[in-house]
Amino acid sequence: MAENKNSEGKRVAVQEMDDLWNVWYSELHDGCCGLTLKVDRILESSESPFQRIDVIENRFFGKLLVLYGSLMVAENDWNAYNEMIVHVPLFTHPDPRQVLIVGGGDCGALTEVMKHPEVERCTMCELDEQVVETSRKHFPRLTAGLEDPRAELVFRDGKEFIYRGTDRYDVIVLDLSDPVGPAAELFQKPFHQAAFDRLNDGGILVAQAESPYFDRGTIAAMHANLADIFPVVRLYTCFMPIYPSGYWAFMFCSKGPDPLADLDGERWDRLKLTTRYYNLETHRAAFALPQFVQEMIAQK
Amino acid sequence: MAENKNSEGKRVAVQEMDDLWNVWYSELHDGCCGLTLKVDRILESSESPFQRIDVIENRFFGKLLVLYGSLMVAENDWNAYNEMIVHVPLFTHPDPRQVLIVGGGDCGALTEVMKHPEVERCTMCELDEQVVETSRKHFPRLTAGLEDPRAELVFRDGKEFIYRGTDRYDVIVLDLSDPVGPAAELFQKPFHQAAFDRLNDGGILVAQAESPYFDRGTIAAMHANLADIFPVVRLYTCFMPIYPSGYWAFMFCSKGPDPLADLDGERWDRLKLTTRYYNLETHRAAFALPQFVQEMIAQK
Repeated sequence: MAENKNSEGKRVAVQEMDDLWNVWYSELHDGCCGLTLKVDRILESSESPFQRIDVIENRFFGKLLVLYGSLMVAENDWNAYNEMIVHVPLFTHPDPRQVLIVGGGDCGALTEVMKHPEVERCTMCELDEQVVETSRKHFPRLTAGLEDPRAELVFRDGKEFIYRGTDRYDVIVLDLSDPVGPAAELFQKPFHQAAFDRLNDGGILVAQAESPYFDRGTIAAMHANLADIFPVVRLYTCFMPIYPSGYWAFMFCSKGPDPLADLDGERWDRLKLTTRYYNLETHRAAFALPQFVQEMIAQK
Repeated sequence: MAENKNSEGKRVAVQEMDDLWNVWYSELHDGCCGLTLKVDRILESSESPFQRIDVIENRFFGKLLVLYGSLMVAENDWNAYNEMIVHVPLFTHPDPRQVLIVGGGDCGALTEVMKHPEVERCTMCELDEQVVETSRKHFPRLTAGLEDPRAELVFRDGKEFIYRGTDRYDVIVLDLSDPVGPAAELFQKPFHQAAFDRLNDGGILVAQAESPYFDRGTIAAMHANLADIFPVVRLYTCFMPIYPSGYWAFMFCSKGPDPLADLDGERWDRLKLTTRYYNLETHRAAFALPQFVQEMIAQK
């Protein structure tokens, strides 16, 4: 066993040193409850022009990316969030060629999109280039999609990109951070209307929509706003151990396609060895909502 | 605002006092990650002949029951665990008259069973009478079923009750604490075989089966053992915010009935205003397992 010296110059084993390092990361809802995890090592702490970026390590979850004080991804989180925000719309769309991700700097969603051979181009519009660089360094599995020639990165404000751009997409994924600070406007109706206008006929938009336990107001408001814009709006959920409450919501919105229609088994057969959470059963099951969630989005 | 004096004899408002009270409850997996919550008040701490019993209060979850250092139920946990461990077998069984709950001292499962008019008798065999008394005092909604004349309480060791008894049941619910300490043997194959022998033809057994994230070994072993005993064994899950990882597993085992067969809509119509998580969609969706969970229970 390696050795080191403590503050009194006494030689101590590394194991003993580890016991003296007792640093915890906690992410709390309303200051009163949430996830806590022991930080074995702090691998990186930096400040971009937009936010604080940390990479920490925990014995169970492995490396974790923390943006603006919120956990984003972990090596051992089974990738539920990225798979569900991407494969639900991509398998629902019969021929998803042009895909846009707004946000998504950890590149986990981009890498899932690149698994679909139908996709001709996936543009990722991320505000903060430093998030992509940090992820590339620490999370090679999540960022593998960056090597794909169909991936196109744009470092720009997502709002500006949506309002001023003209290209149209088959699928738009809003992989945003929480609706506080810079991302807040991207959870509002004018932005959703502008995103609708950037979709092709038959296009699909999916937006991450926070926790059904902790963010009922956000979910109810988003659902009502989106239902004013899109003919098809359906909430779906997944289990995500590092996100607040462990239970996470997404809004599925489309100009026509129904996420519960028959899915193409052959397309799924090509991908099925590459996912850890998504499959055609979890796709359908994700739309089965508990009573308390149904009540949250019931039209008044 | 009420006032009080601090240690220097200075008068301080109660709000300020609350800020000085900074007590946290944390429930950790392997000492490295888990749920943490601020304890606004400790309402009760007692010691039964079997375990330590605490009732604490948190701003978001309300009152919480802690047994042997593990969170069991909360006022505001949306009751997913109790509803899913009870209604999945009871709605699958075409005519559940005789029901046995082993464990379940908080009475949350018993109260759900009593919602089914088909049930003629529900016996609850709980080791620790003091858990029932504490629950009755602090959780009136959970313990409402105790007033039902069809409810029969037996304070006895569940293992002894199963091995020595002779009555047979349509549904047996193993609502046990974690497989450490006194409950450990009740997660083993001999006990499961004895429980099988206490089921009527067409009978169903459901057992709580820990977290798919944290207890993979327990789940894999239980599934393999139960598949040796029962002709039908299916894992299902629910989201449960106060349990480790927020994601929880159950084993559905039967002598015949299939939980994914057609369910009786009329029976559900009678209950649907009384549940907060369970409905016929979440019943079916609970059996759709993520890839990583399917791999965990795949036969070697």
